[in-house]
Amino acid sequence: MSLIVQKFGGTSVRDAERLRNVAEIVTDTYQQGNDVVVVVSAQGDTTDDLIAKAEEVNPRASKREMDMLLSSGEQISAALLAMTIEGMGFPVVSLLGWQAGFDTTTDYSNARIKKVNPARIRQELDKRRIVVVTGFQGVNRFGDMTTLGRGGSDTSAVAIAASMHADLCQIFTDVDGVYTADPRKIPGAIKLETISYDEMLELATLGAQVLHNRSVEMAKKYNIELEVLSSLTRRRGTIVKEESKVEKMLISGVAKDDNIARISIIGVPDKPGLAFKIFSKLASKRINVDIILQSIGRNGTKDISFTVEKSKLEDAIALLQENAEKWGASNIVSDDNVTKVSIVGAGMESHPGVAAEMFEALFSRSVNIQMISTSEIKISVLLNKADGERAVEAIHEKFFETA
Amino acid sequence: MSLIVQKFGGTSVRDAERLRNVAEIVTDTYQQGNDVVVVVSAQGDTTDDLIAKAEEVNPRASKREMDMLLSSGEQISAALLAMTIEGMGFPVVSLLGWQAGFDTTTDYSNARIKKVNPARIRQELDKRRIVVVTGFQGVNRFGDMTTLGRGGSDTSAVAIAASMHADLCQIFTDVDGVYTADPRKIPGAIKLETISYDEMLELATLGAQVLHNRSVEMAKKYNIELEVLSSLTRRRGTIVKEESKVEKMLISGVAKDDNIARISIIGVPDKPGLAFKIFSKLASKRINVDIILQSIGRNGTKDISFTVEKSKLEDAIALLQENAEKWGASNIVSDDNVTKVSIVGAGMESHPGVAAEMFEALFSRSVNIQMISTSEIKISVLLNKADGERAVEAIHEKFFETA
Repeated sequence: MSLIVQKFGGTSVRDAERLRNVAEIVTDTYQQGNDVVVVVSAQGDTTDDLIAKAEEVNPRASKREMDMLLSSGEQISAALLAMTIEGMGFPVVSLLGWQAGFDTTTDYSNARIKKVNPARIRQELDKRRIVVVTGFQGVNRFGDMTTLGRGGSDTSAVAIAASMHADLCQIFTDVDGVYTADPRKIPGAIKLETISYDEMLELATLGAQVLHNRSVEMAKKYNIELEVLSSLTRRRGTIVKEESKVEKMLISGVAKDDNIARISIIGVPDKPGLAFKIFSKLASKRINVDIILQSIGRNGTKDISFTVEKSKLEDAIALLQENAEKWGASNIVSDDNVTKVSIVGAGMESHPGVAAEMFEALFSRSVNIQMISTSEIKISVLLNKADGERAVEAIHEKFFETA
Repeated sequence: MSLIVQKFGGTSVRDAERLRNVAEIVTDTYQQGNDVVVVVSAQGDTTDDLIAKAEEVNPRASKREMDMLLSSGEQISAALLAMTIEGMGFPVVSLLGWQAGFDTTTDYSNARIKKVNPARIRQELDKRRIVVVTGFQGVNRFGDMTTLGRGGSDTSAVAIAASMHADLCQIFTDVDGVYTADPRKIPGAIKLETISYDEMLELATLGAQVLHNRSVEMAKKYNIELEVLSSLTRRRGTIVKEESKVEKMLISGVAKDDNIARISIIGVPDKPGLAFKIFSKLASKRINVDIILQSIGRNGTKDISFTVEKSKLEDAIALLQENAEKWGASNIVSDDNVTKVSIVGAGMESHPGVAAEMFEALFSRSVNIQMISTSEIKISVLLNKADGERAVEAIHEKFFETA
C-alpha cells in the first residue's frame, strides 16, 4: 500500500462535471489499495469573483482580510469534492488548512509553510478515509488564516507529501506533462518522460508555468517524486525526480517569461558595497531580483541593471528613488517591454558549446540580446518582448528539431 | 465605555451598498466610545447558492461536509465587512467561529454552543479594534466546522454578549422592532417599546420570526439586554429584557406559524407509560413536539395527537410506524394543512378572561379550533390553514384595535 498525494487545480474542479472526473481519479487510486490525500485549489473563477467583491468594497483592503476572504474558495471546493466522493459511496473527509496542520509564516497573501503537522490527516487515513485538503492556505502563529501566494496549492501538496513521506505526489493540471517548449506555441514540442528537480526548477522559475518553483524546491529538498499529468487524459505524465534519465538530451526545455521588467540604476559611484546595499534593500521588501548586469566602471561611475517581476516594478522603482540620492545615482530607468528566454538542461554542464548554439539561433533570426545570465544548467537572455516568440521557435528548432 | 454586540443578517450585508450602511452603523457606535463586536450572517443568497452547488454534486451530502461548505458563507461576509470598515479608516479584524472561541456540540447542521472562550476577541478589543465575527458557526471537539442551524447567528451574537458581559446586544433585521402582529399583514399592528424575555420567547417559538428562540433563551438565562431594530431606519427598536413595561397591555402580540403539522396515533391501549415511550422516542431523534392532546380513554384505548415542525413530519411518521405495532396502535394519521395561531402576554396571568376573548374572536369569524394549548403567558390554537389569516385579524382587532 502506497501513500499518494494528488493535487488538482482550479480548472480541474471548476464544476460538477469536472468534480466528478476528479472524484473518479481519486477513487480509482483509492481502490487500487492506496492511501490518498487530495489537495484542491478554489474552483475556476471563485478567486477572481471574490477579488472583485473585495475591490468593490475596498480597493486597498489589507492582506490579512484578503486572506480571510480568499481562503473560503478552497473551503468550498474541498467540501464539494468530498460530497462528490461521498456520493460515489467512498469514505471521505475534507479538512481546512488549519485542520490539516499547515503552520505558516505571518506574511499574509504570500505566506510560507513552516511545517505541516499531519496528525489529523494520519488519523483519518487510519480510518481508511480519503482525505481532501484545502490547498493554498494555512494558519500563522497569531491563529490567523494565511494564503501561500501564487502556485501555493502545488506547495501544499508537496508539503503534505514531505511531512508524511508519501510515495508519490501527483500534480494534475491542464497539460499532460512537461514539454521541451510550450506545446500550444511550438508544434514540435516534445513531452519529457522524466526531468530532474534542478531542470524543473529552472523551467518553473523561467516561466514554464507547469509547476511553481517553491513546490519543486521543496520536492527536491525532501526527495519527493512528483508527477505532472493531466486530469483529463489519464495518460502517464512527466516524472520529476533526482536524476533525469534523458541524458542523451543536451537541454530539456526552452521557456519564455514575459512577466518581467528591467531596471537600470545609472551612474552610481564605482566603489565597493553599493551592490550589497541596493540588493539587500530590495530583498528587505521581498522584491526578488533575477538577472543582474553591472557595467565596468568608467570615470568613477558605473551602471547596475537587473530584472524584477513585473508586478514588483512599481514598488522597486519607488524604493530605489527614495534612496537614489543617498547612493549617488544619477538616474533610474526601467523597461517592462522585455521578455526572458531560457534554455535548461543538466546536459549542458559537460557541453560548453551550448551557449554559442543558442546565440547562433538568435542571430539567425536577427534577435538582439540585451542581457545574458547563466548558471550550471541554464542560459537566460533578456530580449525585446516583440522578439520572444521568434526566439523560442529558433532555439527549439536548433536543439530539438534539427536531428 | 460600553461593550455592544451588533448582529446583522444576510439581507443587511447582501451587497457593497448594504455593507457600507452596516459599516456606518458599526463605526458610529465605535466612535461614541464603545467597544464593538459585530456578528454577521452570510450575504443574501450565498447560502442558497452553496446549497444548490451541493445538490448538484450530491443531493444526500453528509451534514459534516454541508457544514464545511456553508460555513464559508459567513467567512466571506465577515471579511468583506472588515474590508469595508478598513476602507473607512477604522481599525478592524475579522474572526471565524473557531478563532472567536465558539465551542459547539457535534451535531452537524444543528450544533449548540457549549461555550464561548472570548480570549481572542478580548485581545483584539484591547487594541481598540472593531471585531467582526462570523455568526452561525463554531468548531466541535473533533476540531470540525459546525453550523448552528436556523437563527444561529442571533444565538452567536447573544453567546458572545453573555460570555463577555456585554451591555447591549443589538439584533439588526429588516423590521424595526417587535410588533403586536405581522405588520405586513395586519395594518393596525403596533410596535412595542419593550417586551419581556418570556413574551419574546413565546413569540419567537410561535413563528413571529423576529428572533430565534435559542437566542432569546440564552439572553434570558444570562440577562442580556437585547434590542431588535432595523439596519435601514436608524430608529430605536424594541428592547427585550427581564421586565416588560407595557403592563397596561393584556397581551403583547399575535403570531401565526404555518410551519407545523399534526400527527395522531389512533387507538393505543389506555395504560400508563405509553406517552413517555412515544415522546422519548421522538426526542431521541431530535423531533420537537409542540401541542399535545390526549383523548380520554374509551374501550381501553385512547388517541394521542401532537404537532411537529413540518420538516420533521416525514421522519416522525417513519419512526412512529416502525413502533406502531409494538405500542399496539391501530393507525397513524397526519395533517400538514394546519396553522397555529397564538397570543402572548405577561398580562394574561392575572386576567383569566383572555382565553374566552380569544375564542370569541375566532367564533365571530366562524373559525373552528382543532386543538388548544395554554401556558402562563400564551394561548395557542391549531386551526385549518385556510382560517389562519382571518383568525389573526380577528384576534388583533379584538385586543388592539377595539379600544
